[in-house]
Amino acid sequence: MTFPDKITLCEVGLRDGLQNEKTSLTTPQKLELAEAVVTAGMPVVELGSLMSPKAVPQMADTDELFKSMGNSPAELRALIANKKGVDRAFACGCKKVKLNVSASKAHNLANLNKTPAESVAGFAECAQAAKEGNIEISGSISMPFGSPWEGEIPLNDVREIVEAYLALGIDEISLSDASGMAVPSQVFNICEAMRKQYPGVRWWLHFHNTRGMGIANVTAAMEAGMTRFDSSFAGLGGCPFVPGAAGNIATEDVLYLCERMGIQTGVDFDAAMAIAARVTEMVGHPAESCLLKAGKGGLKQ
Amino acid sequence: MTFPDKITLCEVGLRDGLQNEKTSLTTPQKLELAEAVVTAGMPVVELGSLMSPKAVPQMADTDELFKSMGNSPAELRALIANKKGVDRAFACGCKKVKLNVSASKAHNLANLNKTPAESVAGFAECAQAAKEGNIEISGSISMPFGSPWEGEIPLNDVREIVEAYLALGIDEISLSDASGMAVPSQVFNICEAMRKQYPGVRWWLHFHNTRGMGIANVTAAMEAGMTRFDSSFAGLGGCPFVPGAAGNIATEDVLYLCERMGIQTGVDFDAAMAIAARVTEMVGHPAESCLLKAGKGGLKQ
Repeated sequence: MTFPDKITLCEVGLRDGLQNEKTSLTTPQKLELAEAVVTAGMPVVELGSLMSPKAVPQMADTDELFKSMGNSPAELRALIANKKGVDRAFACGCKKVKLNVSASKAHNLANLNKTPAESVAGFAECAQAAKEGNIEISGSISMPFGSPWEGEIPLNDVREIVEAYLALGIDEISLSDASGMAVPSQVFNICEAMRKQYPGVRWWLHFHNTRGMGIANVTAAMEAGMTRFDSSFAGLGGCPFVPGAAGNIATEDVLYLCERMGIQTGVDFDAAMAIAARVTEMVGHPAESCLLKAGKGGLKQ
Repeated sequence: MTFPDKITLCEVGLRDGLQNEKTSLTTPQKLELAEAVVTAGMPVVELGSLMSPKAVPQMADTDELFKSMGNSPAELRALIANKKGVDRAFACGCKKVKLNVSASKAHNLANLNKTPAESVAGFAECAQAAKEGNIEISGSISMPFGSPWEGEIPLNDVREIVEAYLALGIDEISLSDASGMAVPSQVFNICEAMRKQYPGVRWWLHFHNTRGMGIANVTAAMEAGMTRFDSSFAGLGGCPFVPGAAGNIATEDVLYLCERMGIQTGVDFDAAMAIAARVTEMVGHPAESCLLKAGKGGLKQ
């Protein structure tokens, strides 16, 4: 078992976590959390999404967050769906955006009459606008480890999407197990295949803990040499297909894994625990975070 | 990443799960669960403990369970603490008992003025009585992956305990992360070292999900060639040092891992899910089991 010496985390609680909450936090509350996360040393933060506020009302103030967070030492990114998102990013000073497509061919064909790769090709306008606006752009592929519609996703379908992103000049790509179906052997195999075939890609992994496999999947991805992971404070978030199930892997749980395995993250563990506790106060319900429930215990500092 | 084709599970919910519940289940309720677990194909079941009912009142009817379960196709075992436990095992027809010692030298010295290995040597009378009674005996080592008292446990301390068990002719040994502190790299290293140094030992691993690492630790132990694991229906149980934290790894979660990774367990997944649901009805509170909350989802049958 070999692991990287160092990994890079992205805090996605402000986006993937809070967009699953019934009540929206206020802009000052979000800013308090965002600033605390950056101060704790988190290198990348997904602040929100620049999409229709009708679709995701909890994220309506994302432009404001970017304006307020201005010169942050962290990389701040936003999820977008189309060129309007790039335009909003340009207007609010957001320097990094992320697109997403589902790996489920059946689902994409039924909904949009396009394959996922054709959907990505349709992002050409976004990629062009981002380039002109000096905004970095990345791409996400959701459910490459399994979809509720068709079960297993052929690896060739994932490759087609990766190549569609690369054709647009997008070489930072996230594999997102939003449906929480991934298991470690599969994660290892897919990550290893992807890294070998596309060595120039900067890969991210985004795991949910829907079926309790989250930390095992992070571990498997690290064994396959992956070094960039999303996580959410207090484990906030959910699986859009399974109401009531656990959400994103908790930032604190990933930090415990890394601290005890000697893997550097640059994030202050105690500060992250305090943020998670504050988050649960703000959202008003207990968290899925195991570390928040159990504490660090005998972990030596 | 290589994994065994097949693993052996022991259902410990009736012991490690139920002994953590405030209210005791009735003997008929326990028998309903035990019979369902055996019918589901579970090869080994820890039915209860044959210890002082003052110490563990929830387990006071363990003798009755053994008498009723008589000729089960599963191996039925009981936790014991001393020779009285062997005597009770003999009287109720229990054919397999398990001893336990903590790997924490500091804790053992403070409490008993003996090292853990000296405590194991004190089990000689048990081992002799079990042999005479034709009862199989196994040994457990709790907290070899870390203790709340001293943090890391030197591997030599674990070796001393293993050798003390072997000196009594006990060659089936469980490594138990009751404090929920283990992380995958450590699990892999300790399991690999133990297997290489003591190839004749039949190893068991017992993980809790206290800090969210449970399934990752099972995966790491399997990578190190381990093939015997305890788990608890509905994830019942707890960490004795962290009230409110998650308990044993859930049997259903381990089954999801194995089903999706193509590892045989011999246990019927649907039956196990139904048992977990029934357990939560009986104990009257929601479970920690991720699979029970999320369902099997897109898992193909």
